[in-house]
Amino acid sequence: MPFKVTILGSNSAIPAYGRHHTAQYIQIKNKHFLVDCGEATQNQIKRYKLSAQKINAIFISHLHGDHYLGLVGLLSSMHLQGRTTALNLYGPLGLRDIITLHLKYSDTTLRYKVNFFPYNANEESIIYEDKHITVSTIPLEHRIDCSGFLFLEKPHEVRINKEKLPEGFSLENIGRLKKGEDIFGNDSQLLYKNSELTLPAFPSRSYAYCSDTRYLPHLKRQLKGVNVLYHEATFLDENELRASNTFHSTAGQAAQLAKDAKAKKLLIGHFSARYKDLSPFEQEARKIFSESYLAIEGTTFDIPLK
Amino acid sequence: MPFKVTILGSNSAIPAYGRHHTAQYIQIKNKHFLVDCGEATQNQIKRYKLSAQKINAIFISHLHGDHYLGLVGLLSSMHLQGRTTALNLYGPLGLRDIITLHLKYSDTTLRYKVNFFPYNANEESIIYEDKHITVSTIPLEHRIDCSGFLFLEKPHEVRINKEKLPEGFSLENIGRLKKGEDIFGNDSQLLYKNSELTLPAFPSRSYAYCSDTRYLPHLKRQLKGVNVLYHEATFLDENELRASNTFHSTAGQAAQLAKDAKAKKLLIGHFSARYKDLSPFEQEARKIFSESYLAIEGTTFDIPLK
Repeated sequence: MPFKVTILGSNSAIPAYGRHHTAQYIQIKNKHFLVDCGEATQNQIKRYKLSAQKINAIFISHLHGDHYLGLVGLLSSMHLQGRTTALNLYGPLGLRDIITLHLKYSDTTLRYKVNFFPYNANEESIIYEDKHITVSTIPLEHRIDCSGFLFLEKPHEVRINKEKLPEGFSLENIGRLKKGEDIFGNDSQLLYKNSELTLPAFPSRSYAYCSDTRYLPHLKRQLKGVNVLYHEATFLDENELRASNTFHSTAGQAAQLAKDAKAKKLLIGHFSARYKDLSPFEQEARKIFSESYLAIEGTTFDIPLK
Repeated sequence: MPFKVTILGSNSAIPAYGRHHTAQYIQIKNKHFLVDCGEATQNQIKRYKLSAQKINAIFISHLHGDHYLGLVGLLSSMHLQGRTTALNLYGPLGLRDIITLHLKYSDTTLRYKVNFFPYNANEESIIYEDKHITVSTIPLEHRIDCSGFLFLEKPHEVRINKEKLPEGFSLENIGRLKKGEDIFGNDSQLLYKNSELTLPAFPSRSYAYCSDTRYLPHLKRQLKGVNVLYHEATFLDENELRASNTFHSTAGQAAQLAKDAKAKKLLIGHFSARYKDLSPFEQEARKIFSESYLAIEGTTFDIPLK
């Protein structure tokens, strides 16, 4: 059951040094998601041999161009390549106006349905739910309304301990074990306590995507214990004032949040075009939080069940 | 006095095989122009070491995404990189709505002025003029309103024949020669006929950009004698019916137009993603018009004075 994130773009405002605008491709079990969709995201999807047509839902964090200007092109290519499966789109309300205007002027009617779900970037709420996960907004503070997204697995079932399973144990009873029930005989006597034949469920995995934002220490509550935290780090600490003035964060601040939230791993990205060499970002973050990594193009981060 | 065209994108609708959406960077004397601006054009401009900030005017042929979806990102990057010089933008009327909506939702006020000049794609008219050139619309026939652009040099001055120039010939008289005047003495007697001291002016150079269109044989009139004709060739002749149904052209049709118009050179592009190997396009065109070339990414076509 895969739970993984592939980075398609790592640069902020102006593409530079071969780094692209923000987009991330997330696969959780059999569902495929795109988070943000900067210009040329469709090219990046191709480059890393991912599938645009498999995307079930797209989440757009805010309406700065470097986070969504690839969306109309991607929707259009899905259409031209014959997509008929509906696509769910989560974004700020204005996104609908923008897409509608483009389709109007290009005289295009998409062959598939786009179910648009506007969300309120200023409140924490579940905006997506399927059998396996929920996605919640993470209210951020940027120059315009902006939200992060928390992907959280629903609780797993307990695991059957095959070594302990008696011979001839029925499928029906295995189903009962998975639900956490004890096993009783025909005359209602307790045959096995659930815990005798099972192992504890794997903990739910989680991924938090914190898009453009100034440093918000209070996020540690919502992000508590997250497996992987992606947090923007547009600047280094030396530019902390500039970061604050432009509603962005530094690598050090991202690392502090990861530490305070007791995250297991931190990914940093959205680097300013002023930096050619990114190694100081990793160094700065690792001084505070050792499990810090650069979220650069083409890198895939797996979150294994364990 | 340069007159050259660099191809930034050669593919139609869906980017494929590393080929990009349509955009061309044109330099004529000290002026820089961009014609169409598909997604990721700003990246292509960087890749080929051209300058976005030097662009004086942008011409958009029509509002299909593969011809303009890179525009908002490019305008935004110009802004972020400190542009203050005004930019002239020529496009269909709807383009203004689109740009305005993006800027509204991103809460952006560009640091420079964009002078927007909507044009009528259905009539042939001069939409741009400076000291050295004019740019005229070329009415095309596509699924939506679409225009090509004819870049035409104004007549050159006659050239001074330095070998024939008498010693001590004044700058004032050289100016007269350049204007085509004869040279008279103080008592109004004819000293030199203009043709004695000059060589004929170089002929005006021209470049025609024929964006998405079905095959229009009548264009040979407006394109007569053009130095370089770019014409879309989305399909090969084997798909002529499909070309016609989708308001596109074949390589053979583009070549026939180049031949009928007595163009000096033909560039073909806007290839369908169904073709990986483009050599059949060149072969098909060259059977009809030998000076046919593929307009592929990174290629620069010079039109020398001669």
